[in-house]
Amino acid sequence: MRIHLQSYISDNNFPLSPDVWDAAAARAPDVSAGHEVSFGDTAGAFTAAAPTMEVLISQTAALSKLTPFAAPHLKMIFCTSAGLERLAPFDWLPPGVPILNNRGAHSAKAGEFGIMSLLMLASRIPALATAQRAGKWLPRHGSVLAGRRLVVVGLGALGGSTASHAKHFGMTVTGVRATATPHPACDQVVTMDQLDSVLPGAEFLFLAPPLTDATHGLLSRARLALLPKGAGVVNIGRGGLVDQDALMDALDAGHLSGAVLDVFVPEPVPEGHRLWTTPNLLMTPHVSADDPLTYNPRTLDIFFDNLRALRDGRALPNEFHLSRGY
Amino acid sequence: MRIHLQSYISDNNFPLSPDVWDAAAARAPDVSAGHEVSFGDTAGAFTAAAPTMEVLISQTAALSKLTPFAAPHLKMIFCTSAGLERLAPFDWLPPGVPILNNRGAHSAKAGEFGIMSLLMLASRIPALATAQRAGKWLPRHGSVLAGRRLVVVGLGALGGSTASHAKHFGMTVTGVRATATPHPACDQVVTMDQLDSVLPGAEFLFLAPPLTDATHGLLSRARLALLPKGAGVVNIGRGGLVDQDALMDALDAGHLSGAVLDVFVPEPVPEGHRLWTTPNLLMTPHVSADDPLTYNPRTLDIFFDNLRALRDGRALPNEFHLSRGY
Repeated sequence: MRIHLQSYISDNNFPLSPDVWDAAAARAPDVSAGHEVSFGDTAGAFTAAAPTMEVLISQTAALSKLTPFAAPHLKMIFCTSAGLERLAPFDWLPPGVPILNNRGAHSAKAGEFGIMSLLMLASRIPALATAQRAGKWLPRHGSVLAGRRLVVVGLGALGGSTASHAKHFGMTVTGVRATATPHPACDQVVTMDQLDSVLPGAEFLFLAPPLTDATHGLLSRARLALLPKGAGVVNIGRGGLVDQDALMDALDAGHLSGAVLDVFVPEPVPEGHRLWTTPNLLMTPHVSADDPLTYNPRTLDIFFDNLRALRDGRALPNEFHLSRGY
Repeated sequence: MRIHLQSYISDNNFPLSPDVWDAAAARAPDVSAGHEVSFGDTAGAFTAAAPTMEVLISQTAALSKLTPFAAPHLKMIFCTSAGLERLAPFDWLPPGVPILNNRGAHSAKAGEFGIMSLLMLASRIPALATAQRAGKWLPRHGSVLAGRRLVVVGLGALGGSTASHAKHFGMTVTGVRATATPHPACDQVVTMDQLDSVLPGAEFLFLAPPLTDATHGLLSRARLALLPKGAGVVNIGRGGLVDQDALMDALDAGHLSGAVLDVFVPEPVPEGHRLWTTPNLLMTPHVSADDPLTYNPRTLDIFFDNLRALRDGRALPNEFHLSRGY
């Protein structure tokens, strides 16, 4: 098989390098042998590979700058992100060519980041960091997660792994997703259209669904008001899930006791933006789910699982469904 | 038995109130009935109770302002802190009267705070909070705890519960304490005099021993230099365990990648102190182990366990050993 790996064209923290490929190939000897493999991090390298490539592995940001393109032999595209909204609309996608996302690569790191965020809210770290920013000693005691109520929206790699950790810490966990299928880490699972009914009981609200037309603006001003006073909010999904102004207002007013946000509109957050000085808000720069030490090895392990399925004519585990957007 | 409960004289976040007492008494009916109980939060209330009291339960800060005192019928003093160094020297203590600390009350909260601190170091939160303080978007990826090396100094309620959580997250845990007795959460336990030999392997160093003559200044400038470049440090024990200037120098120089400190010299940290602006340092105001929701209920449960032992003539589980200082 003719396989091309395309990295970011600039500012690349996670290069898809030959040594990472070789190590992953050694872990999947049954499916990694006999391929002709190329690597590129420029538009020129991509153009040179396109006429012959059968499988494309691409960092999503790189691909978004390369479409549309002609690749007559293409059988499969594997993107190294979980969210592919920056490739939409998918009118550039050759008919019949499956596009895959990287769901599953983020669960270890995102789960640790997720439970950390909840522990931080319980210990009032966003408020204490606000006090530190002001150089003020402000003894404000937090509490524990054990016995407290968490609502997790989205039970994919991010939300699901966080829910599992939360269960370990003794929380009562309500999951919210498209279907009410039970989840092993959740005491109950409800559908998205029941979200309003569970928000008043949410001491902690954790957002990690995909960003789709259905989830855009999910945490609206009206829904923020449904949360109990003193609730804490985490968003590691996408900035567009939240009415950001309403969230800042809720923090300013003390309706929320704290928030941990990893995603924003826009990114990067510009200097001087109101977010930087909103009280009781701890900001991280879209780093919650990516671990440089393990990300690409895990990514290529997932890729080889899918390549095996392609070879065997089975359904591709990571196929991205254009109609539902994840 | 004549029992007196003495609270802080001012600024009391954790009052030893009659309703907390009544609830705890209901959980220990075999040992809580038939006592004459008084409550006070002033020096006058203490003076009035002293001539008749047989058991004193006191918040440690309150007691430190009331010594010396005469209480001819006193059989036992139970202090609501784990560390009693502010009561030293114990020349005011009536001969033969055991003094008890509150070890065990802090394990749930301190364990959650402890693992949170380690997760924060893994995700580079101290560095990201420093960037937030400056209003700068600084994408800096962290990693996970799984598979990484932790050294925990002190395996009491604080260090022991943190070590247990760390094991759950897949860390390799080395414990350091006075004796090399094995600990279920530790891969190995070494004695204090072997500390220097384990520091070079410590990606994370967690400090939670009691403050004694033997541990004062434990994390010296020389020992900081033994840590590998990029290590992270947590201190939830006492400020005096650390050469604070040397620690700030190590953060300034980038030798440490981050630190989470809950305890300082002095406390409160004065406005304008260098600590407030030291980079990659996240400060919390001595709140790591205390949970207002559960602290006093748990404290009184521990007290009743000890009262039961006193009644039965058994060794008191929480007796504080003056000679070793914990």
